[in-house]
Amino acid sequence: MVETRRDRRWRPGGLKGSVQEDSVARITILGAGFMGSALTFPASDNGHRVTLWGTWLDDHLIEAVRRGEAHPKLRLHLSPGVRVCHHAQLAEALSGADLVVNAVTSEGTLPVLRRAFPLLAPGTPLMSVSKGLLRRQDGRVDTISAAIREGLPRSLRRGFRLVVVGGPSKAMELARRVPTAVCYASADAAPRRLARRLFQTPYYAIREMADVRGLEVCSAFKNAYAIAAGLCDGLVKAGRWEASTNTKAALFAQAIGEMEILVRSVRGKLATVTGLPGVGDLFVTGVAGRNRTFGEMRGSGMPTHQVVAELSARDELTEGYAAIRMGQTYARQRRLPDLPLLAALHRIVYRGGDAERALRRAVFGSRGRARA
Amino acid sequence: MVETRRDRRWRPGGLKGSVQEDSVARITILGAGFMGSALTFPASDNGHRVTLWGTWLDDHLIEAVRRGEAHPKLRLHLSPGVRVCHHAQLAEALSGADLVVNAVTSEGTLPVLRRAFPLLAPGTPLMSVSKGLLRRQDGRVDTISAAIREGLPRSLRRGFRLVVVGGPSKAMELARRVPTAVCYASADAAPRRLARRLFQTPYYAIREMADVRGLEVCSAFKNAYAIAAGLCDGLVKAGRWEASTNTKAALFAQAIGEMEILVRSVRGKLATVTGLPGVGDLFVTGVAGRNRTFGEMRGSGMPTHQVVAELSARDELTEGYAAIRMGQTYARQRRLPDLPLLAALHRIVYRGGDAERALRRAVFGSRGRARA
Repeated sequence: MVETRRDRRWRPGGLKGSVQEDSVARITILGAGFMGSALTFPASDNGHRVTLWGTWLDDHLIEAVRRGEAHPKLRLHLSPGVRVCHHAQLAEALSGADLVVNAVTSEGTLPVLRRAFPLLAPGTPLMSVSKGLLRRQDGRVDTISAAIREGLPRSLRRGFRLVVVGGPSKAMELARRVPTAVCYASADAAPRRLARRLFQTPYYAIREMADVRGLEVCSAFKNAYAIAAGLCDGLVKAGRWEASTNTKAALFAQAIGEMEILVRSVRGKLATVTGLPGVGDLFVTGVAGRNRTFGEMRGSGMPTHQVVAELSARDELTEGYAAIRMGQTYARQRRLPDLPLLAALHRIVYRGGDAERALRRAVFGSRGRARA
Repeated sequence: MVETRRDRRWRPGGLKGSVQEDSVARITILGAGFMGSALTFPASDNGHRVTLWGTWLDDHLIEAVRRGEAHPKLRLHLSPGVRVCHHAQLAEALSGADLVVNAVTSEGTLPVLRRAFPLLAPGTPLMSVSKGLLRRQDGRVDTISAAIREGLPRSLRRGFRLVVVGGPSKAMELARRVPTAVCYASADAAPRRLARRLFQTPYYAIREMADVRGLEVCSAFKNAYAIAAGLCDGLVKAGRWEASTNTKAALFAQAIGEMEILVRSVRGKLATVTGLPGVGDLFVTGVAGRNRTFGEMRGSGMPTHQVVAELSARDELTEGYAAIRMGQTYARQRRLPDLPLLAALHRIVYRGGDAERALRRAVFGSRGRARA
C-alpha cells in the first residue's frame, strides 16, 4: 500500500530544509516515548533515514529496541531501518539531520533542546509534537514554541524555523497505521511543506496552517479539559450519577467555547478551534487516554495527591494535571474573561473541591441557572 | 433537591403564553416515545400539570403506563401526577393547554399537528423537540419548523409562536435527572422564556437563543454525521482497522466543519455550531445511541437493506438513515459547496459504497492527500 523510497539512493546536497522532492531525508526524532516512536512509522514507510534518540529517561526503551524486542510502550516492533540512539549519543543522532523532531514531554523539552541546539547546523528546521504550557524565565506562562524560541542560542536565532503539530493523534493508533489526520503549523511555508512531505502517508494526513499560537493553545488546554470527561465517568462509578453522556456533551461544548476565548486572545483563528486541533483533539483526548483516567480516579472520590501518586508509580501521570494549574495562571496573567469550566477543574483538582458540585456550577452557572 | 409547586393552587387566567411567574401551567406533550415521556420529568418536578398524549403508534406505551407499569421505553415509572391520553383523546389532551410540545418523530409531526391545530386556542405556543428535515409540498427539503409553518391553518398563522429545542439530551438520562444542558430557540422572546421557565430544573439547564434555523440545521444533520462514528466502530469490528479513535476524531472535526457551511447557508450563527446544538449534540449522538448502532452494523459489512430491516424489526431504526438522503438533497437544492463527509455517507448508506474507502477519501481528499 505504501510506496517507499528505500531503494532510491540518498542524494546529498541542497540547503537544509530544502531536501529535494524525491530524495531520502535524514530525520532525527528526540524522545523515544509514545509519539516519538510512533512517528518513526510514517517516516520509515516513506523511505527516509530515521534516527530515534532516547532521553536519559528513555534508556529502558532504547535498550529493549536494541535487544530486538518490541517497543515497550507501543508494544510494536519498530521498522528495521530505524536507528536508535542512547542519550549519550546525541551528537551522533543529530549529525546530518535534515529535520529534527522534538517529541520530549513538555517539561523535558527545554533541558533536551539546550543540549541539542549547539549540535544543530544553522537553518535545520525543528518540528515539535510536544504540547503544553511552560513557565518562561520572567515567570510568565507561555506556549512551548515561545519557550523554545526564548531558549535558543544567538547563533540559531536568525532563520530559525519551527513547525508545531496538533490534532487528534493517539500514538498507539498512528503506529498501527489507523487513518489519522493532523495539522502542521508554521509561520513559514517552506519548513511546514518539507515536514508534511516527509511524514505524509496514506494513513497520516497532514493539513498545513499558519496559526501556530492558536494550535498550541488548543493542544495545551485540551489536556486540561479532557479531565472533565473523566470526572463524569468517576461520578457515575461512585454512584452519584446514573449516567453522564448528556453532561459530558455539555462540558465538551463548554470547553470548546472556552478554547475559543483562549485562541482569540492570542489572535488565533476560530477555524483552529473548530477543526482538528480543537474539536478533533479534545474528542480523542476526552474519549480515550490518560487524562481521562486521571479525571475518573479523582471524580470517583480519590483525593488528588493519591491519584498523582498512583499514576506516577505506573508512569502514567499525564500533562492534563499540570495543564490545569498552568492554564489557570495563563488565563489570569492575560486577564481573560471568566472561564468557568477551567476554574471548576482547578477547584476540583487543586483545592479538593467536590466534583459534582463544581461541574454542575460550570454547566448551569452560579445560581443553578443556565448561562445564556 | 427539586422544589415543586404541587402544593400551590392553580391560578387560572392570564393570556396564553403569559402564564404568571409562580403559577402552575398546563403542559400537553404530543408523542409518548423517549423524549416526550422524558420531558414529563422536569415539567412534573416543577409542579406543572402534565398531559402526555400518545399517537396511534404509541398505544402500547400508553396502555402500559395506565396499567401502572414503567414506561416501556424509558424503563421508569412516570410521576404519578402525569395524565396519559390515548390517541383518540386528542381534544381532551389539548384542552386548556398553556404550552403544547411536539415530541412526535419527524415523519409523524405533520400528520399529528394537522389534527392538533384545529383544537388549539389561537396564540398557544408550540415547542418542538422533533429533529430532522422534511419534504415540503413544493418538493423542497426544509427544516421541521418551516414545514410546520407551512402546514398551519390560516386561523393560527397570525401570532403563531414556535420554540425549537436542540442540544445534547439523551431522553434516558434526562428522565433519570442526569445534569443536561440544552438550547431553546425562538425568534420571539416571550414563548422562549415561558418554555424555559416551565421546564428548567437544577438538572435541566436551558439556554435561550434566537437562531432557530441554525439550531434546526445542527439538530437534523447531527443524526446523519453520527452514523460516521458508528461506521468506524463497524470497520474495527470487521477487523479492517485495529482501532479508530484518531479517525473518529478527524471525522468529528470534519462534520463540524460541514455543519458550519450548512448553518452559514441559512444565515445561522457560528456559535450555534460550536455550542450545545452542534458540537454538544454531535458528541452525544456519535458516542451513544441508535444512529451509531446503524453505522456500526453497516460499517461491519452488512448491506443497508438488511440493517434497515433488522433495526425496523426492533423498532430502533433512527432518523440518521433518512437524514443522510434528505440532507444530501437539501445541500444540492441549495447548491452548497462540496460536503465530502455527507457525500461519503450517502455513497456508503445509499449506494453500497465501501465504508473504509469512502471515509478515507472524506478525510484525506480525493487523491489520498489531506485537504489544506
